[in-house]
Amino acid sequence: MATINKNFQKLASGYLFPEIARRTKLWQASHPDTQVLRLGIGNTTEALPEAVCEAMKKKIDELGQRSTYTGYGDEQGDTYLREAFVEYYKRYNVELESSEFFISDGAKSDAANIQDIFGTDNVVAVQDPAYPVYVDSNVVGGRTGLFNSEKGCYDGFEYLSSTEENGFIPVPPQEKVDLIYLCSPNNPTGAVATYDQLKAFVDYAIEHKSVIIFDSAYSEYITEEGYPRSIYEVEGAKSCAIEINSFSKFSGFTGVRLGWTIVPKELECEDAPKGVLNAMWNRRQCTFFNGASNIAQRGGFAALSGPGHAESRALVSYYLENARIIREGLEQVGLTVYGGVNSPYIWAKTPNGMDSWDFFDILLDTCHVVVTPGGGFGPGGKNFVRVSSYGHRENVVQAMKQIKENLKI
Amino acid sequence: MATINKNFQKLASGYLFPEIARRTKLWQASHPDTQVLRLGIGNTTEALPEAVCEAMKKKIDELGQRSTYTGYGDEQGDTYLREAFVEYYKRYNVELESSEFFISDGAKSDAANIQDIFGTDNVVAVQDPAYPVYVDSNVVGGRTGLFNSEKGCYDGFEYLSSTEENGFIPVPPQEKVDLIYLCSPNNPTGAVATYDQLKAFVDYAIEHKSVIIFDSAYSEYITEEGYPRSIYEVEGAKSCAIEINSFSKFSGFTGVRLGWTIVPKELECEDAPKGVLNAMWNRRQCTFFNGASNIAQRGGFAALSGPGHAESRALVSYYLENARIIREGLEQVGLTVYGGVNSPYIWAKTPNGMDSWDFFDILLDTCHVVVTPGGGFGPGGKNFVRVSSYGHRENVVQAMKQIKENLKI
Repeated sequence: MATINKNFQKLASGYLFPEIARRTKLWQASHPDTQVLRLGIGNTTEALPEAVCEAMKKKIDELGQRSTYTGYGDEQGDTYLREAFVEYYKRYNVELESSEFFISDGAKSDAANIQDIFGTDNVVAVQDPAYPVYVDSNVVGGRTGLFNSEKGCYDGFEYLSSTEENGFIPVPPQEKVDLIYLCSPNNPTGAVATYDQLKAFVDYAIEHKSVIIFDSAYSEYITEEGYPRSIYEVEGAKSCAIEINSFSKFSGFTGVRLGWTIVPKELECEDAPKGVLNAMWNRRQCTFFNGASNIAQRGGFAALSGPGHAESRALVSYYLENARIIREGLEQVGLTVYGGVNSPYIWAKTPNGMDSWDFFDILLDTCHVVVTPGGGFGPGGKNFVRVSSYGHRENVVQAMKQIKENLKI
Repeated sequence: MATINKNFQKLASGYLFPEIARRTKLWQASHPDTQVLRLGIGNTTEALPEAVCEAMKKKIDELGQRSTYTGYGDEQGDTYLREAFVEYYKRYNVELESSEFFISDGAKSDAANIQDIFGTDNVVAVQDPAYPVYVDSNVVGGRTGLFNSEKGCYDGFEYLSSTEENGFIPVPPQEKVDLIYLCSPNNPTGAVATYDQLKAFVDYAIEHKSVIIFDSAYSEYITEEGYPRSIYEVEGAKSCAIEINSFSKFSGFTGVRLGWTIVPKELECEDAPKGVLNAMWNRRQCTFFNGASNIAQRGGFAALSGPGHAESRALVSYYLENARIIREGLEQVGLTVYGGVNSPYIWAKTPNGMDSWDFFDILLDTCHVVVTPGGGFGPGGKNFVRVSSYGHRENVVQAMKQIKENLKI
C-alpha cells in the first residue's frame, strides 16, 4: 500500500504564481475585451541578446552534424562554462575554482533542491517576506510543523522580519538556526544588503556552524556602490555560504533555463568537514540531474563576455528604467514605495493597511494591472504588493497611466 | 549547527558512470596514443534530426525578436507539446489528457524525483539489475537501511531477480511492496516485457494498492510485435502506474534535455484517492522546477510527427543495426549475449563467472573498448556487462574487430 509524502498536505495553498494566473484568467474571462497589463510575475519580455541567439544557433548547427554532435555533458555543467565563471567572479575579487560551480536548469530548481543535502532536523530561517520556494521546499522536505493560518506561518520555521523599520534587511536571529535563506537584491522587497549587513550573517553562521543559502539571482541589478554582488565578497563567507544565481533576469533566460550554484570546498557544517558539502551536492546532481541543456549552456557562455555581456547589461538597464517609471508613478499616486533602484522590483505599501490580495483585486479590477500580492511571500508582505519592472516600456507606461487615472486611495 | 542528510552516507559508491569515466581517464592517461572505443555509457553519437534543428533555430529566432519573445512557460510544459503527446499516445491505443503529461528536462530527473511525493515508509522494489537512479534516489530519500556490502544490496529494499532463467523479466514479489520500479525495454539487460508480464505487475499493484513507476525511455526501440510501448496499453494500469519517458534515445536529446512523465488522474494509492497524485506531482513541479527549456520543447514537438519523426525513427534504426553487429560479434567470440533486438543494449555474460568490473578492465586493457560493468546495476549484474549500441558505425565495427582479435576467453 503506497502512501504519500504527507508533508505536501501541510502546504498552505497553491504556489503563488499559478494562483495569480488563475485569478487573472478568471477576471479576463468575464472581461474579454479588456487588455490586462501584467506587472506581476517577474517574467522577462525583451528579446534575447543577439550574441546569445547566435551562439545557441551555432551549437544547434554543431548538433546537426555528426562530426560535431555531442550527447550527455557533465552533470555539473560544461567545463568551458564553469571556467568562464571563475573568470567572471574575479570582477568581484572573488576567487573560486571551476569545481565549485554547478550549472543547472535555473535558480528555482537549485533553491528548491539544495535543502535535500541537509538533515530534516535543521531549523530553517527565512526572511519574511521571501520567495515562496525557500519555504515550500522545506515544508515538503519535512522541516516544518503545520501551517498556522492565524499567524500565516509554519510552526518550527524562523521568520526574520523584513520591515520598513529595518529597511527590509533583518539582523541575524537571536535564536540558534541552522539554515538561513538570504536573497539580495531581495525578491520581493527590492532591498539590497550592505557589506556590513551580510557580514553580520556570515559572522553568525560561522559562530553557530549554520549554512547560509544566498540567492543572488538579481545581483546584476545592483547599480550603486557598496553592495556585494556575491556573498563571497564578504570575508569568511566561503566557509558558511552556498550561492545560487541565474541567467533568467540578466540575459532573459526565463524560458531558456540556465542557472548555477556555488558550493565552496571550504564550506563546512556541524557534521561535514570542508569538502563534504561540495561532494554531496556533486553527488546529488549526478544522481538527480543530467546536466543543463547544452544549447542553453552555450548561450550562457556568450552572455558572460563580449557583445553578449554588453547586450545583457543593456537588458538590465532597460528593466531598471522601467523600475524608475513604476517607482515614480506609484509615488505620484501617493503610495509609499521601496526598492526599484538596485532591483527590478518595487515594493509598494497598500493604502490604509489594506490586505495585499484585496489590493491585487482592486488594481486588477479598476486599473487592469496585475501585481503580486505581498501576502504570497509571507505574513510580512500582507500590506504590500510587489510590482515587477519586467514588461514592454509602453505597457509599463500605460499601466502607470491607468493606475494614475483610476486608482482611488 | 547545520547537519547533513545522513542518507547520503549510505550510498555505496560513486554514481556508476562517473566511476567508469574515472577509470577510463586513468587508463587513457597511461596510454595516451591509444584510441579508446566507448560502448559504455548509453550516449547518443549521431546528428540531431534536421527538422528538430530547424524547429529549435526557429524558436531562437522568435526569442531574438521582441514581438515573438516568450519568457517563463508553464512548469508542466507548453500546452502545444502536451497536446501533441495526447495524439502521439493514440498510436498505442492509449487515451490520456494533456493535463496528465508533465514535460521535464529528462527521464533521469523525473525517475529520481518521483519518489519525493511518496512517504519515506514505502517499501521499494526494483528489478535487479536496474538503472542506479531508482535505487540511489530512494537511498537519499530515506527508504533503505544500510548497504550490505556482502550481498551488494541495501537493507530494506526488495530486489526482484532478473536472471537468465526468467528471461530477465521478474514476476511480482511474494512480499508486499509499495513502490515498484519497472523498465521495459530494460536498461541494462535489453529484455522487454510482454503484455502478460506487465499485466501480472498491474494486477499485483491494484491488489496491493502499490504504485508502479514505469520507465519506458527505450520504448521506441521495440521492433517486434506483442510488447507494449506504454504501460497504459495494459488494462488497469492508469489506476496504478506512472510512466516516464524521454527524447534522449529517440531523437538524440541526451545533451539537449527533454523528457516527460505521465501521472494519470485515475492513479490512486492507500491514502490518495484518484486525482491526488496527479495534483501532487503538479505541485511538486510548480515548486521545484520551472519548466523545460522552451527551445528543447520546440525541438521535441518536431520529433513527434512529420519529417522530424521519420528522422528520429531512422536514428533508432541506426542504433539497432549497431546492436545487431555487437550482438553477433560477441556471439562469435563465444560470449553468451541477451538483448539488442528491441533494445539498444546488449547484455553479455562474463566468461567463466568473472566479476564484471574485472571483465571491464580486461576489455579496456586488451581490446581498448569501454563497456559498463553489470555490477554497477546491482548484485544481479555482477557476471554481466552492458554493451551500448550508441556509437558511430565504424567505431562499433572496429570495437568488435578489436574484441575478436584480442579477447582471450
